[in-house]
Amino acid sequence: MLAKNVFLRAQEKTIAYFEQAGIVLSNEEQQMIEVADFGLNELEIQGLELITYINNDYYCAKELVLFPNQTCPEHKHPQIGELQGKTETFRCRFGKVYLYVEGLKTKKIQATVPTSSKNYYTVFNEIELNPGEQFTIPPNTLHWFQAGDDGAIVSEFSTTSRDEYDIFTDPRIKRVPEVSE
Amino acid sequence: MLAKNVFLRAQEKTIAYFEQAGIVLSNEEQQMIEVADFGLNELEIQGLELITYINNDYYCAKELVLFPNQTCPEHKHPQIGELQGKTETFRCRFGKVYLYVEGLKTKKIQATVPTSSKNYYTVFNEIELNPGEQFTIPPNTLHWFQAGDDGAIVSEFSTTSRDEYDIFTDPRIKRVPEVSE
Repeated sequence: MLAKNVFLRAQEKTIAYFEQAGIVLSNEEQQMIEVADFGLNELEIQGLELITYINNDYYCAKELVLFPNQTCPEHKHPQIGELQGKTETFRCRFGKVYLYVEGLKTKKIQATVPTSSKNYYTVFNEIELNPGEQFTIPPNTLHWFQAGDDGAIVSEFSTTSRDEYDIFTDPRIKRVPEVSE
Repeated sequence: MLAKNVFLRAQEKTIAYFEQAGIVLSNEEQQMIEVADFGLNELEIQGLELITYINNDYYCAKELVLFPNQTCPEHKHPQIGELQGKTETFRCRFGKVYLYVEGLKTKKIQATVPTSSKNYYTVFNEIELNPGEQFTIPPNTLHWFQAGDDGAIVSEFSTTSRDEYDIFTDPRIKRVPEVSE
Protein backbone atom coordinates (compact mmCIF):
# COMPACT_ATOMS: atom_id res chain seq x y z
CA MET A 1 0.00 0.00 0.00
CA LEU A 2 1.22 3.43 -0.94
CA ALA A 3 1.66 5.72 2.08
CA LYS A 4 -0.43 8.84 1.75
CA ASN A 5 2.54 11.21 2.09
CA VAL A 6 4.45 9.34 -0.64
CA PHE A 7 1.37 9.51 -2.85
CA LEU A 8 0.84 13.24 -2.31
CA ARG A 9 4.49 14.08 -2.88
CA ALA A 10 4.46 12.09 -6.12
CA GLN A 11 1.32 13.91 -7.28
CA GLU A 12 3.01 17.25 -6.64
CA LYS A 13 6.15 16.21 -8.49
CA THR A 14 4.00 15.03 -11.41
CA ILE A 15 2.22 18.38 -11.59
CA ALA A 16 5.62 20.09 -11.68
CA TYR A 17 6.67 17.90 -14.63
CA PHE A 18 3.55 18.83 -16.55
CA GLU A 19 4.07 22.52 -15.82
CA GLN A 20 7.66 22.36 -16.95
CA ALA A 21 6.53 20.86 -20.27
CA GLY A 22 3.70 23.37 -20.74
CA ILE A 23 1.02 20.69 -20.39
CA VAL A 24 -2.03 22.16 -18.70
CA LEU A 25 -4.28 20.07 -16.45
CA SER A 26 -7.51 21.27 -14.90
CA ASN A 27 -7.62 21.46 -11.10
CA GLU A 28 -9.91 18.45 -11.09
CA GLU A 29 -7.45 16.47 -13.22
CA GLN A 30 -4.58 17.38 -10.91
CA GLN A 31 -6.50 15.75 -8.07
CA MET A 32 -7.03 12.65 -10.18
CA ILE A 33 -3.38 11.97 -11.01
CA GLU A 34 -2.74 8.28 -10.40
CA VAL A 35 0.39 7.14 -8.64
CA ALA A 36 1.17 3.44 -9.10
CA ASP A 37 3.90 1.69 -7.16
CA PHE A 38 2.53 -1.70 -8.24
CA GLY A 39 2.63 -2.86 -4.64
CA LEU A 40 6.44 -3.05 -4.75
CA ASN A 41 7.04 -0.23 -2.27
CA GLU A 42 9.89 1.39 -4.20
CA LEU A 43 8.02 4.03 -6.16
CA GLU A 44 11.04 5.98 -7.37
CA ILE A 45 12.53 2.79 -8.86
CA GLN A 46 9.45 0.92 -10.08
CA GLY A 47 6.43 3.16 -10.49
CA LEU A 48 4.38 5.32 -12.81
CA GLU A 49 2.35 8.52 -12.59
CA LEU A 50 -0.46 9.25 -15.01
CA ILE A 51 -3.57 11.17 -15.85
CA THR A 52 -6.34 9.71 -18.03
CA TYR A 53 -7.94 12.33 -20.28
CA ILE A 54 -10.53 10.04 -21.79
CA ASN A 55 -11.26 6.30 -21.68
CA ASN A 56 -14.43 5.30 -23.50
CA ASP A 57 -15.59 2.12 -25.26
CA TYR A 58 -13.42 2.93 -28.28
CA TYR A 59 -10.25 4.83 -27.39
CA CYS A 60 -8.17 6.09 -24.51
CA ALA A 61 -5.73 8.97 -24.09
CA LYS A 62 -3.40 9.35 -21.14
CA GLU A 63 -0.33 11.32 -20.19
CA LEU A 64 2.30 9.28 -18.37
CA VAL A 65 5.05 10.73 -16.20
CA LEU A 66 8.19 8.88 -15.23
CA PHE A 67 10.60 10.34 -12.69
CA PRO A 68 14.34 10.11 -13.48
CA ASN A 69 15.21 6.44 -14.22
CA GLN A 70 11.80 5.31 -12.94
CA THR A 71 10.59 2.06 -14.52
CA CYS A 72 7.15 0.80 -15.43
CA PRO A 73 7.46 -2.97 -14.86
CA GLU A 74 7.07 -5.54 -17.62
CA HIS A 75 3.48 -6.40 -18.53
CA LYS A 76 1.11 -7.09 -21.39
CA HIS A 77 -2.51 -6.34 -22.27
CA PRO A 78 -4.25 -9.64 -23.02
CA GLN A 79 -7.44 -10.40 -24.90
CA ILE A 80 -10.48 -10.29 -22.58
CA GLY A 81 -13.24 -12.58 -23.79
CA GLU A 82 -13.99 -11.36 -27.29
CA LEU A 83 -12.23 -8.02 -26.74
CA GLN A 84 -8.81 -7.79 -28.34
CA GLY A 85 -5.96 -6.71 -26.06
CA LYS A 86 -5.02 -3.05 -25.88
CA THR A 87 -3.01 -1.58 -28.74
CA GLU A 88 -1.08 1.46 -27.57
CA THR A 89 0.99 4.22 -29.11
CA PHE A 90 3.63 5.83 -26.90
CA ARG A 91 4.70 9.30 -27.96
CA CYS A 92 7.55 10.93 -26.07
CA ARG A 93 6.77 14.55 -25.20
CA PHE A 94 9.60 15.39 -22.85
CA GLY A 95 12.80 13.71 -21.66
CA LYS A 96 13.82 10.29 -22.88
CA VAL A 97 12.26 6.84 -22.63
CA TYR A 98 13.80 3.45 -23.17
CA LEU A 99 11.05 1.09 -24.24
CA TYR A 100 11.55 -2.68 -24.36
CA VAL A 101 9.32 -5.06 -26.28
CA GLU A 102 9.36 -8.67 -27.43
CA GLY A 103 11.79 -9.41 -30.25
CA LEU A 104 15.51 -9.56 -30.85
CA LYS A 105 17.44 -8.70 -27.68
CA THR A 106 19.40 -5.46 -28.01
CA LYS A 107 23.04 -6.29 -27.27
CA LYS A 108 23.77 -3.58 -24.73
CA ILE A 109 20.61 -2.04 -23.37
CA GLN A 110 20.73 1.51 -22.03
CA ALA A 111 18.27 1.08 -19.14
CA THR A 112 19.14 -0.50 -15.81
CA VAL A 113 16.96 -3.44 -14.83
CA PRO A 114 15.58 -2.87 -11.30
CA THR A 115 17.61 -5.11 -9.00
CA SER A 116 14.77 -6.21 -6.76
CA SER A 117 12.77 -7.58 -9.71
CA LYS A 118 15.62 -8.71 -11.95
CA ASN A 119 14.09 -12.08 -12.82
CA TYR A 120 10.84 -10.52 -13.97
CA TYR A 121 12.27 -8.55 -16.87
CA THR A 122 12.40 -10.85 -19.88
CA VAL A 123 12.13 -8.74 -23.07
CA PHE A 124 15.00 -6.55 -24.23
CA ASN A 125 14.29 -5.31 -27.73
CA GLU A 126 15.15 -1.63 -27.16
CA ILE A 127 13.41 1.36 -28.70
CA GLU A 128 14.73 4.76 -27.63
CA LEU A 129 12.12 7.49 -27.72
CA ASN A 130 13.03 11.17 -27.66
CA PRO A 131 10.55 14.06 -27.90
CA GLY A 132 8.59 13.81 -31.16
CA GLU A 133 9.24 10.07 -31.50
CA GLN A 134 6.66 7.35 -31.00
CA PHE A 135 6.10 3.60 -31.17
CA THR A 136 2.97 1.46 -31.33
CA ILE A 137 2.86 -1.69 -29.21
CA PRO A 138 0.63 -4.49 -30.54
CA PRO A 139 -1.85 -6.27 -28.24
CA ASN A 140 -0.66 -9.04 -25.95
CA THR A 141 3.00 -8.02 -26.30
CA LEU A 142 5.25 -7.92 -23.26
CA HIS A 143 6.80 -4.48 -22.69
CA TRP A 144 8.40 -2.31 -20.04
CA PHE A 145 9.91 1.15 -20.09
CA GLN A 146 12.29 3.35 -18.15
CA ALA A 147 12.91 7.10 -18.21
CA GLY A 148 16.33 8.65 -18.78
CA ASP A 149 18.11 10.84 -16.25
CA ASP A 150 15.70 13.80 -16.64
CA GLY A 151 12.49 11.80 -16.34
CA ALA A 152 9.96 11.67 -19.16
CA ILE A 153 6.47 12.56 -20.23
CA VAL A 154 4.77 10.17 -22.64
CA SER A 155 1.42 10.59 -24.36
CA GLU A 156 -0.38 7.29 -24.67
CA PHE A 157 -3.03 6.87 -27.38
CA SER A 158 -4.72 3.49 -27.32
CA THR A 159 -7.77 1.33 -27.51
CA THR A 160 -9.87 1.16 -24.32
CA SER A 161 -7.83 0.76 -21.11
CA ARG A 162 -8.77 -2.07 -18.78
CA ASP A 163 -5.80 -1.86 -16.42
CA GLU A 164 -7.22 -4.43 -14.02
CA TYR A 165 -6.65 -7.15 -16.66
CA ASP A 166 -2.98 -6.32 -17.28
CA ILE A 167 -0.66 -9.27 -16.80
CA PHE A 168 2.63 -8.46 -15.08
CA THR A 169 5.62 -10.75 -15.31
CA ASP A 170 6.39 -10.12 -11.62
CA PRO A 171 3.76 -12.18 -9.76
CA ARG A 172 3.96 -9.87 -6.72
CA ILE A 173 2.50 -6.96 -8.66
CA LYS A 174 -0.94 -5.57 -8.04
CA ARG A 175 -1.85 -2.92 -10.61
CA VAL A 176 -4.84 -1.37 -8.94
CA PRO A 177 -3.42 1.25 -6.61
CA GLU A 178 -4.24 1.41 -2.94
CA VAL A 179 -3.40 4.34 -0.71
CA SER A 180 -3.17 4.04 3.06
CA GLU A 181 -4.45 6.83 5.29
CA MET B 1 -6.70 24.68 -54.93
CA LEU B 2 -4.28 25.93 -52.32
CA ALA B 3 -1.38 27.92 -53.82
CA LYS B 4 1.95 26.40 -52.94
CA ASN B 5 3.30 29.57 -51.31
CA VAL B 6 0.17 29.87 -49.12
CA PHE B 7 0.55 26.21 -48.15
CA LEU B 8 4.22 26.53 -47.26
CA ARG B 9 3.69 29.72 -45.27
CA ALA B 10 0.87 28.06 -43.32
CA GLN B 11 3.09 25.04 -42.59
CA GLU B 12 5.79 27.33 -41.22
CA LYS B 13 3.32 29.23 -39.07
CA THR B 14 1.97 25.94 -37.74
CA ILE B 15 5.46 24.78 -36.79
CA ALA B 16 5.95 28.07 -34.91
CA TYR B 17 2.71 27.47 -32.97
CA PHE B 18 3.88 24.01 -31.94
CA GLU B 19 7.28 25.36 -30.89
CA GLN B 20 5.68 28.10 -28.84
CA ALA B 21 3.62 25.49 -26.98
CA GLY B 22 6.58 23.15 -26.44
CA ILE B 23 5.08 20.45 -28.69
CA VAL B 24 7.87 18.63 -30.51
CA LEU B 25 7.37 17.21 -34.00
CA SER B 26 9.92 15.11 -35.86
CA ASN B 27 11.33 16.60 -39.07
CA GLU B 28 9.31 14.09 -41.06
CA GLU B 29 6.11 15.13 -39.26
CA GLN B 30 6.82 18.80 -39.93
CA GLN B 31 6.83 17.99 -43.65
CA MET B 32 3.52 16.15 -43.29
CA ILE B 33 1.57 18.99 -41.68
CA GLU B 34 -1.75 19.24 -43.51
CA VAL B 35 -3.15 22.61 -44.48
CA ALA B 36 -6.85 22.55 -45.36
CA ASP B 37 -8.62 25.54 -46.89
CA PHE B 38 -11.60 23.33 -47.78
CA GLY B 39 -11.53 24.73 -51.32
CA LEU B 40 -12.87 28.07 -50.07
CA ASN B 41 -9.73 30.06 -50.83
CA GLU B 42 -9.73 32.07 -47.62
CA LEU B 43 -7.43 30.00 -45.45
CA GLU B 44 -6.97 32.54 -42.66
CA ILE B 45 -10.76 32.76 -42.22
CA GLN B 46 -11.90 29.21 -42.91
CA GLY B 47 -9.13 26.69 -42.62
CA LEU B 48 -7.31 24.21 -40.40
CA GLU B 49 -3.77 22.97 -39.93
CA LEU B 50 -3.03 19.56 -38.46
CA ILE B 51 -0.65 16.70 -37.93
CA THR B 52 -1.83 13.11 -37.56
CA TYR B 53 0.29 11.16 -35.08
CA ILE B 54 -1.49 7.84 -35.53
CA ASN B 55 -4.58 6.67 -37.39
CA ASN B 56 -5.13 2.92 -37.26
CA ASP B 57 -8.20 0.67 -37.43
CA TYR B 58 -9.07 1.52 -33.81
CA TYR B 59 -8.02 5.02 -32.81
CA CYS B 60 -6.61 8.25 -34.08
CA ALA B 61 -4.61 11.08 -32.48
CA LYS B 62 -4.02 14.43 -34.11
CA GLU B 63 -2.85 17.88 -33.13
CA LEU B 64 -4.91 20.69 -34.68
CA VAL B 65 -3.74 24.27 -35.07
CA LEU B 66 -6.04 27.21 -35.67
CA PHE B 67 -4.63 30.63 -36.46
CA PRO B 68 -6.22 33.62 -34.69
CA ASN B 69 -9.99 33.53 -35.29
CA GLN B 70 -9.59 30.83 -37.93
CA THR B 71 -12.66 28.59 -38.29
CA CYS B 72 -13.03 24.93 -39.14
CA PRO B 73 -16.33 24.87 -41.06
CA GLU B 74 -19.42 22.99 -39.90
CA HIS B 75 -19.40 19.27 -40.62
CA LYS B 76 -20.23 15.84 -39.20
CA HIS B 77 -18.75 12.36 -39.29
CA PRO B 78 -21.44 9.97 -40.54
CA GLN B 79 -21.76 6.21 -40.27
CA ILE B 80 -20.02 4.44 -43.18
CA GLY B 81 -21.63 1.10 -43.95
CA GLU B 82 -21.44 -0.80 -40.69
CA LEU B 83 -18.80 1.51 -39.24
CA GLN B 84 -20.10 3.98 -36.69
CA GLY B 85 -19.28 7.65 -37.29
CA LYS B 86 -16.21 9.11 -35.65
CA THR B 87 -16.39 9.99 -31.95
CA GLU B 88 -13.85 12.66 -31.10
CA THR B 89 -12.49 14.32 -27.99
CA PHE B 90 -11.14 17.86 -28.39
CA ARG B 91 -8.66 18.92 -25.72
CA CYS B 92 -7.45 22.50 -25.76
CA ARG B 93 -3.68 22.72 -25.27
CA PHE B 94 -3.03 26.36 -26.04
CA GLY B 95 -5.11 29.47 -26.71
CA LYS B 96 -8.88 29.35 -26.74
CA VAL B 97 -11.45 27.52 -28.87
CA TYR B 98 -15.13 28.17 -29.31
CA LEU B 99 -16.76 24.89 -30.24
CA TYR B 100 -20.35 24.71 -31.53
CA VAL B 101 -22.42 21.54 -31.56
CA GLU B 102 -26.05 20.56 -32.05
CA GLY B 103 -28.35 21.51 -29.17
CA LEU B 104 -29.78 24.57 -27.54
CA LYS B 105 -28.57 27.74 -29.28
CA THR B 106 -26.36 29.87 -27.03
CA LYS B 107 -27.94 33.32 -26.85
CA LYS B 108 -24.92 35.43 -27.66
CA ILE B 109 -22.16 33.37 -29.21
CA GLN B 110 -18.57 34.56 -28.87
CA ALA B 111 -17.30 33.47 -32.30
CA THR B 112 -17.92 35.37 -35.53
CA VAL B 113 -19.59 33.34 -38.25
CA PRO B 114 -17.53 33.64 -41.47
CA THR B 115 -19.43 36.08 -43.71
CA SER B 116 -18.84 34.26 -46.97
CA SER B 117 -20.43 31.05 -45.65
CA LYS B 118 -23.00 32.51 -43.28
CA ASN B 119 -25.85 30.26 -44.40
CA TYR B 120 -23.83 27.12 -43.84
CA TYR B 121 -23.43 27.52 -40.09
CA THR B 122 -26.50 26.05 -38.42
CA VAL B 123 -25.54 24.82 -34.92
CA PHE B 124 -24.80 27.27 -32.11
CA ASN B 125 -24.59 25.39 -28.84
CA GLU B 126 -21.38 26.97 -27.56
CA ILE B 127 -18.65 25.22 -25.57
CA GLU B 128 -15.65 27.37 -24.67
CA LEU B 129 -12.44 25.42 -24.29
CA ASN B 130 -9.39 26.82 -22.56
CA PRO B 131 -6.11 24.93 -21.95
CA GLY B 132 -6.81 21.81 -19.90
CA GLU B 133 -10.48 21.68 -20.93
CA GLN B 134 -11.99 19.12 -23.29
CA PHE B 135 -15.23 17.99 -24.86
CA THR B 136 -16.26 14.77 -26.60
CA ILE B 137 -18.40 15.06 -29.74
CA PRO B 138 -20.67 12.07 -30.45
CA PRO B 139 -20.78 10.51 -33.94
CA ASN B 140 -22.90 12.08 -36.67
CA THR B 141 -23.20 15.40 -34.77
CA LEU B 142 -22.81 18.69 -36.62
CA HIS B 143 -20.01 20.84 -35.21
CA TRP B 144 -17.68 23.71 -36.06
CA PHE B 145 -15.04 25.57 -34.13
CA GLN B 146 -13.14 28.82 -34.12
CA ALA B 147 -9.99 29.96 -32.33
CA GLY B 148 -9.81 33.03 -30.14
CA ASP B 149 -7.55 36.01 -30.84
CA ASP B 150 -4.31 34.15 -30.06
CA GLY B 151 -5.06 31.07 -32.15
CA ALA B 152 -5.29 27.62 -30.60
CA ILE B 153 -3.81 24.17 -30.43
CA VAL B 154 -6.21 21.29 -29.89
CA SER B 155 -5.38 17.63 -29.32
CA GLU B 156 -7.91 15.38 -30.97
CA PHE B 157 -8.34 11.83 -29.66
CA SER B 158 -10.87 9.81 -31.65
CA THR B 159 -11.96 6.65 -33.35
CA THR B 160 -10.46 6.05 -36.80
CA SER B 161 -10.41 9.14 -39.05
CA ARG B 162 -11.92 8.81 -42.51
CA ASP B 163 -11.86 12.47 -43.49
CA GLU B 164 -13.00 11.79 -47.04
CA TYR B 165 -16.46 10.79 -45.73
CA ASP B 166 -17.01 13.97 -43.69
CA ILE B 167 -20.21 15.79 -44.57
CA PHE B 168 -19.89 19.58 -44.66
CA THR B 169 -22.91 21.84 -44.45
CA ASP B 170 -21.40 24.14 -47.10
CA PRO B 171 -21.86 22.23 -50.38
CA ARG B 172 -18.89 23.99 -51.97
CA ILE B 173 -16.45 22.34 -49.58
CA LYS B 174 -13.97 19.69 -50.64
CA ARG B 175 -12.16 18.22 -47.66
CA VAL B 176 -9.31 16.46 -49.38
CA PRO B 177 -6.63 19.08 -49.86
CA GLU B 178 -5.08 19.89 -53.19
CA VAL B 179 -1.99 22.01 -53.61
CA SER B 180 -1.12 23.71 -56.91
CA GLU B 181 2.48 23.88 -58.05
